[in-house]
Amino acid sequence: MKGRSRKAGLPPGTLIHIGARKTPEPKITIIDYDEATFQERETKAIEECFLFKDKPTVTWINVDGLHQSEILEKLGECYHFHPLVLEDILNTDQRPKMEEYGDYLYIVLKMLHDKGKGSQIEAEQVSLVLGPNYVFSFQESGGDVFDQIRERLRTGKGRLRKMGADYLAYTLVDAIVDYYFVILEKLGERIELLEEELVAHPRTETLKEIHTLKREMIFLRKAVWPLREVISSLQRGESPLVQKTTGIYLRDVYDHTIQVIDTIETFRDILSGVLDIYLSSVSNRLNSVMKVLTIIATVFMPLTFLAGVYGMNFKYMPELEWRWGYPVTWGVMVAIGVAMLVYFRKKKWL
Amino acid sequence: MKGRSRKAGLPPGTLIHIGARKTPEPKITIIDYDEATFQERETKAIEECFLFKDKPTVTWINVDGLHQSEILEKLGECYHFHPLVLEDILNTDQRPKMEEYGDYLYIVLKMLHDKGKGSQIEAEQVSLVLGPNYVFSFQESGGDVFDQIRERLRTGKGRLRKMGADYLAYTLVDAIVDYYFVILEKLGERIELLEEELVAHPRTETLKEIHTLKREMIFLRKAVWPLREVISSLQRGESPLVQKTTGIYLRDVYDHTIQVIDTIETFRDILSGVLDIYLSSVSNRLNSVMKVLTIIATVFMPLTFLAGVYGMNFKYMPELEWRWGYPVTWGVMVAIGVAMLVYFRKKKWL
Amino acid sequence: MKGRSRKAGLPPGTLIHIGARKTPEPKITIIDYDEATFQERETKAIEECFLFKDKPTVTWINVDGLHQSEILEKLGECYHFHPLVLEDILNTDQRPKMEEYGDYLYIVLKMLHDKGKGSQIEAEQVSLVLGPNYVFSFQESGGDVFDQIRERLRTGKGRLRKMGADYLAYTLVDAIVDYYFVILEKLGERIELLEEELVAHPRTETLKEIHTLKREMIFLRKAVWPLREVISSLQRGESPLVQKTTGIYLRDVYDHTIQVIDTIETFRDILSGVLDIYLSSVSNRLNSVMKVLTIIATVFMPLTFLAGVYGMNFKYMPELEWRWGYPVTWGVMVAIGVAMLVYFRKKKWL
Amino acid sequence: MKGRSRKAGLPPGTLIHIGARKTPEPKITIIDYDEATFQERETKAIEECFLFKDKPTVTWINVDGLHQSEILEKLGECYHFHPLVLEDILNTDQRPKMEEYGDYLYIVLKMLHDKGKGSQIEAEQVSLVLGPNYVFSFQESGGDVFDQIRERLRTGKGRLRKMGADYLAYTLVDAIVDYYFVILEKLGERIELLEEELVAHPRTETLKEIHTLKREMIFLRKAVWPLREVISSLQRGESPLVQKTTGIYLRDVYDHTIQVIDTIETFRDILSGVLDIYLSSVSNRLNSVMKVLTIIATVFMPLTFLAGVYGMNFKYMPELEWRWGYPVTWGVMVAIGVAMLVYFRKKKWL
Amino acid sequence: MKGRSRKAGLPPGTLIHIGARKTPEPKITIIDYDEATFQERETKAIEECFLFKDKPTVTWINVDGLHQSEILEKLGECYHFHPLVLEDILNTDQRPKMEEYGDYLYIVLKMLHDKGKGSQIEAEQVSLVLGPNYVFSFQESGGDVFDQIRERLRTGKGRLRKMGADYLAYTLVDAIVDYYFVILEKLGERIELLEEELVAHPRTETLKEIHTLKREMIFLRKAVWPLREVISSLQRGESPLVQKTTGIYLRDVYDHTIQVIDTIETFRDILSGVLDIYLSSVSNRLNSVMKVLTIIATVFMPLTFLAGVYGMNFKYMPELEWRWGYPVTWGVMVAIGVAMLVYFRKKKWL
Repeated sequence: MKGRSRKAGLPPGTLIHIGARKTPEPKITIIDYDEATFQERETKAIEECFLFKDKPTVTWINVDGLHQSEILEKLGECYHFHPLVLEDILNTDQRPKMEEYGDYLYIVLKMLHDKGKGSQIEAEQVSLVLGPNYVFSFQESGGDVFDQIRERLRTGKGRLRKMGADYLAYTLVDAIVDYYFVILEKLGERIELLEEELVAHPRTETLKEIHTLKREMIFLRKAVWPLREVISSLQRGESPLVQKTTGIYLRDVYDHTIQVIDTIETFRDILSGVLDIYLSSVSNRLNSVMKVLTIIATVFMPLTFLAGVYGMNFKYMPELEWRWGYPVTWGVMVAIGVAMLVYFRKKKWL
Repeated sequence: MKGRSRKAGLPPGTLIHIGARKTPEPKITIIDYDEATFQERETKAIEECFLFKDKPTVTWINVDGLHQSEILEKLGECYHFHPLVLEDILNTDQRPKMEEYGDYLYIVLKMLHDKGKGSQIEAEQVSLVLGPNYVFSFQESGGDVFDQIRERLRTGKGRLRKMGADYLAYTLVDAIVDYYFVILEKLGERIELLEEELVAHPRTETLKEIHTLKREMIFLRKAVWPLREVISSLQRGESPLVQKTTGIYLRDVYDHTIQVIDTIETFRDILSGVLDIYLSSVSNRLNSVMKVLTIIATVFMPLTFLAGVYGMNFKYMPELEWRWGYPVTWGVMVAIGVAMLVYFRKKKWL
Repeated sequence: MKGRSRKAGLPPGTLIHIGARKTPEPKITIIDYDEATFQERETKAIEECFLFKDKPTVTWINVDGLHQSEILEKLGECYHFHPLVLEDILNTDQRPKMEEYGDYLYIVLKMLHDKGKGSQIEAEQVSLVLGPNYVFSFQESGGDVFDQIRERLRTGKGRLRKMGADYLAYTLVDAIVDYYFVILEKLGERIELLEEELVAHPRTETLKEIHTLKREMIFLRKAVWPLREVISSLQRGESPLVQKTTGIYLRDVYDHTIQVIDTIETFRDILSGVLDIYLSSVSNRLNSVMKVLTIIATVFMPLTFLAGVYGMNFKYMPELEWRWGYPVTWGVMVAIGVAMLVYFRKKKWL
Repeated sequence: MKGRSRKAGLPPGTLIHIGARKTPEPKITIIDYDEATFQERETKAIEECFLFKDKPTVTWINVDGLHQSEILEKLGECYHFHPLVLEDILNTDQRPKMEEYGDYLYIVLKMLHDKGKGSQIEAEQVSLVLGPNYVFSFQESGGDVFDQIRERLRTGKGRLRKMGADYLAYTLVDAIVDYYFVILEKLGERIELLEEELVAHPRTETLKEIHTLKREMIFLRKAVWPLREVISSLQRGESPLVQKTTGIYLRDVYDHTIQVIDTIETFRDILSGVLDIYLSSVSNRLNSVMKVLTIIATVFMPLTFLAGVYGMNFKYMPELEWRWGYPVTWGVMVAIGVAMLVYFRKKKWL
Repeated sequence: MKGRSRKAGLPPGTLIHIGARKTPEPKITIIDYDEATFQERETKAIEECFLFKDKPTVTWINVDGLHQSEILEKLGECYHFHPLVLEDILNTDQRPKMEEYGDYLYIVLKMLHDKGKGSQIEAEQVSLVLGPNYVFSFQESGGDVFDQIRERLRTGKGRLRKMGADYLAYTLVDAIVDYYFVILEKLGERIELLEEELVAHPRTETLKEIHTLKREMIFLRKAVWPLREVISSLQRGESPLVQKTTGIYLRDVYDHTIQVIDTIETFRDILSGVLDIYLSSVSNRLNSVMKVLTIIATVFMPLTFLAGVYGMNFKYMPELEWRWGYPVTWGVMVAIGVAMLVYFRKKKWL
């Protein structure tokens, strides 16, 4: 939520980057291709992109780093993007959505990361602008899940180079959704570990881990749930920018999204169950602690009382004088103790 | 809910202000502009507003303070407002809604405030009436989130002065929704603080703070949830009073509203988790208290019993006469104590 | 639910009054008016009503007390009401509903009462039959929320006398819904009281009051929820009996109904929170009780043991002979006690 | 669920009766009537039914007992029933449903029973087949809620004899739904009893009764919920077999069904509340038990310690020699005890 | 979820089998029939299948084992399957779905197994491809629920041989859904066992079994829930590949699916109830343990104190010298003990 309030009261279309500056300097990568030709270059001057605007080839322009709003301003002027689109690209706490603007489509999604083992999941906003012969992708920082796509473009294998810009956009969305499965698999492993730990040796940390995982599920669901609608409306093929053949592929991504949502829901259910088990194991332990206490107290209180009685200093206590008083008292004590234990065993406390 | 019952049984259209009188005297501000001209004045006589009724320029009339119902009566007569609209403006416990009346639109929303740090969130009802060339805004008290809009109107920068009354209405709604993010950010900080406190040092006050926050979420949701529908029906552009170009901007506000609702839901989920952690930390503490008690009782009860036995006054107790009776008894006692502790360590209670 | 089973197996349209006989004798009140004329009379003979059937003026016939089914039978014959309508009027456990029968509309709603302070809410079924120039209202007992309407009819102030029968029906529904706010306000006060009590001095009665309130919410929701649909279908103006101008007023009642439902839901959420606080305050108290017990036991058990040791009667106990044995033992005891207290303070139990 | 698995793998339309054989021999009752004539006969030979097939009068054929599948086979052949209909009649674990087969409608519902006081509710599947001039009803065993309908047919009072087969089918459905109210009333009484018991003297059996009732609610809901849709689709009058005039009566049954569902939901809510009260009364009792223990322990532990101190056998204990040592010690003990009790009273534990 | 991440980043249509290799070598079975002829053969060369492509007879080709992707590749080429279909067949963690591809329908479902008593339920993905005159079925491993269908095809009894490929597909789906009832019946038995155990002798293992069953319900629901939509869209008969007469049979399977879902929901409700009973029986036991402890402590603490008092060594303790001191003390002690027990009986603790 942080940083969003800085924009309160400013006119719509004001270009202010929300969120931390994640990369030292914006980096622009241009890939231009059709079935026959392929060209890739890296630049810092956004003006280079304008050269590709009217070429019939498909152009993919990727921008890493969003804190220099001039880049977007120039782009917006050249490609006639709506000021709200430019604003939304910089608003990195958007929920996934798709908007049609006649000439181009604007798509927002969340790319999930996890840096190393046991670390938290991070989400990065990726904005796509799909035009008739170009795709813009805007990322908050460098490092993405598109490397294999770049490789496929370079080598020219498969369908990708033969298809239009809409297929490229699909491929990017597909790569992002596919990576969700990687994230989910890791979460699944953490849940399994948690369950094993719960059985073997429940600790207070277990509770915290349960809640960390629960919160990550909330976080994930928020990132994935609206995607369902986004892809569904893309697939329904109402925009002339998305061809029918690409629609079938989008249906495939749609299925994957549903599967991701399903898995998140299942994980949530499992975590609720794990929490229940944890809580009832805590109260079970309380029960067994109380039983030990009760058994000890119940056995020794009467005995101590008896010992107390024969420790009294009355002058006339006939038992004290009696030759067998001491051993008989011991006998009675042992009998009481054994009787108590038998009683507890009968009550299944032992 | 307070005050609403005062109106039970009265005929519809009766002008009674519900809620506390929040401002000493109503204040009327008139801003009249088009791209070229700008005029701003403050008055107490509502009749001044009527001068602007037929001018082609856009007129924004803001009324602070609702307890003098004559103002509304005169306004209603001059502008031909439906009696129910006038009644609803004074009914300050409305839920957000939008109603079409042919010549004008009537919009109700909730403006959120928070007075200083740690204070409760307050909601003030703002009623907008959007006509072909005028916008009325009615507030319960002075002080609002529109100052930056006034400034933009005065300086004439940006799109605002060039657009019609519908764009002005959009700008007002946008300003209110934008301020929700400020409120949410503050709530988010309070939740974070709560969580830190929970880990560091849980107290009974923590529970109360959790429930205060939960209730504020209920309150917020009630204020924001119906807004979604309001803006959605505005944006669908069915009314001729809202132009198509403004529709795109309304879609933007719509997205923000969804985002606010999403965040509220996430906060609710997080608060539920926080409550769970609090409750199970309470029962964990009970567990550890009981363990201490049980360990102490289990160690000392047998020992005290033994001491009691050799405190008995039987005449014939051979052990008492024995030279090593005392040290051996000590030895047995220490052995019992150590055995108990070893047992507890094995059971992971220590 | 009571009494409903008496009707099992009887043919449809059988006129049996369900529920207790709430009024000694049925009372019929006839109000007949148009803008110019006004006539009001009270009778016991239903036949009088038939005189007004074909007059162009608006006739409002109110029947208090339903246990004399002949009245309904005669009415049904004269006005050609469907037997199921007559049956439903006597079935006083209906849920609110609206049914169109060509010539007339049949509307059922629940009028809420509360008799005095702190008493339970009671619901009375009110059936309305709206024809082209008449409104019938059937109540189980005398005493209703329509007195102000009668007054407005008599004095002829306002819109009411100028409008048709549909506006009268609207006015009746509006009066009933308006009274819901009175009931809700009283419930709100009870909830506030409950919360204050909870903080000041929670008792077992608090729990019962929570559940009484919860059940009243269930009861209210059942009475109000279907009303939403009833009014919505009235307002949509599909029936020729409801004029367009009345539709705007019905939209207003619709808004009120939504507001009532909203408030009920909020109250339910608040009551859940109150229950949570109550329950966790109970377990907090258990915790503090246990702490006291544990502290006392942990401090005194070792001390009692020590006293027990030097109460043993062994012949050879060198400490007993020692000159400083007694004061040193006291010193050790005080030291142990202090150490324990320091330990507990460190653990934040004190 | 039992018995359903026997059919796994068999071809569709295989006639196997699921469930226990509830009646020794199938019994067929034929009632044939129009406004003027009435005929009733009982038979064991299904062939008799075929005589009525082409008569213009309305024929109601009731079959008690389903385990002789030949009856159904012959019937199916003669009346051209779809094999799946025949199969479904024997599948007595169907959920309520309605299926159109052109010439006839197939309706499944659950007839509820309760055998004597305090016994469990039993559901029996009733299948209706409604043709142009016949109604078949299939029951698992003898004994039903249709006796009053038979009586009405015999005496010829009321509407029933004048109407067609669709009205007869409506009457049967109505009788079944009406009996739900009887069952609900009994359940309501059990819930009331439970609540009284809960207040007066909560026991472990109370918990079991709560859960028995909860499960019966699940069971009931499963039986009634789909009925809503069944009757709604009947009423919408899409089938030419159901006349418009009957539609109004079906709307009445529909209302009753909604009311039954409403009541079930209310009962579920009430039972949840009852469970909450039970659980918190259990934990309240634990609290009060712990308080007694703590008070006793806190009062007597210091006293016992003191008594122990003066029971020590040190040679030099000046207090022991002191003339007032014993009474002063008693005084101190009483003072300690009183102080503790005052402390507990202040803490509201007494 | 396992294995799914291996595919991240690969182009769509890449044939990689997800999941363990469950069968040593793929096995292809071809059954070709019409009403007159029948032919069955087993092969390892997929090319044999191509012979049947253009024959008017119905061909059912079943493939057990999916890890040799060449088989699918060849099939896809010959029958012109979309690459995504081939990919989905190998993606064995699909949720049930149905996709239309003009010439053929692609259906995914989950076949449920259970290997022996008390073992976990296993799900195997079955993919069906339904063309105008062929049905392909793909299974992960050998062993299925189709044996009775094969038998019916061989013997030629019943409807099956006379109908088209769509009826065969229906039969396969029906067999899979029918087996769900077998699985549910076994689960029902386990739940019943659980409940009996809960009443007789609740153990910690009971809790684990409850959660195992709960998770199996989640698992089942995930497998069955989407099936509802699959069959519903098949039945609506929008595809020309499914004939109208088959539609009625599909409606039957649809009913069964709803019934399965209903039963799963009921089981979930019952398991929640069982968990509640378990948890409250645990806290009831704690209560009874605490009562025993409290009774013992409350009876013996005052007695032990008294014994301690008369064990003190004060020189001047008149009671000690008194002739009846000892028996009177005993009397007082017994009186205290009896008074305590009477008090507890009155409080219903005994």
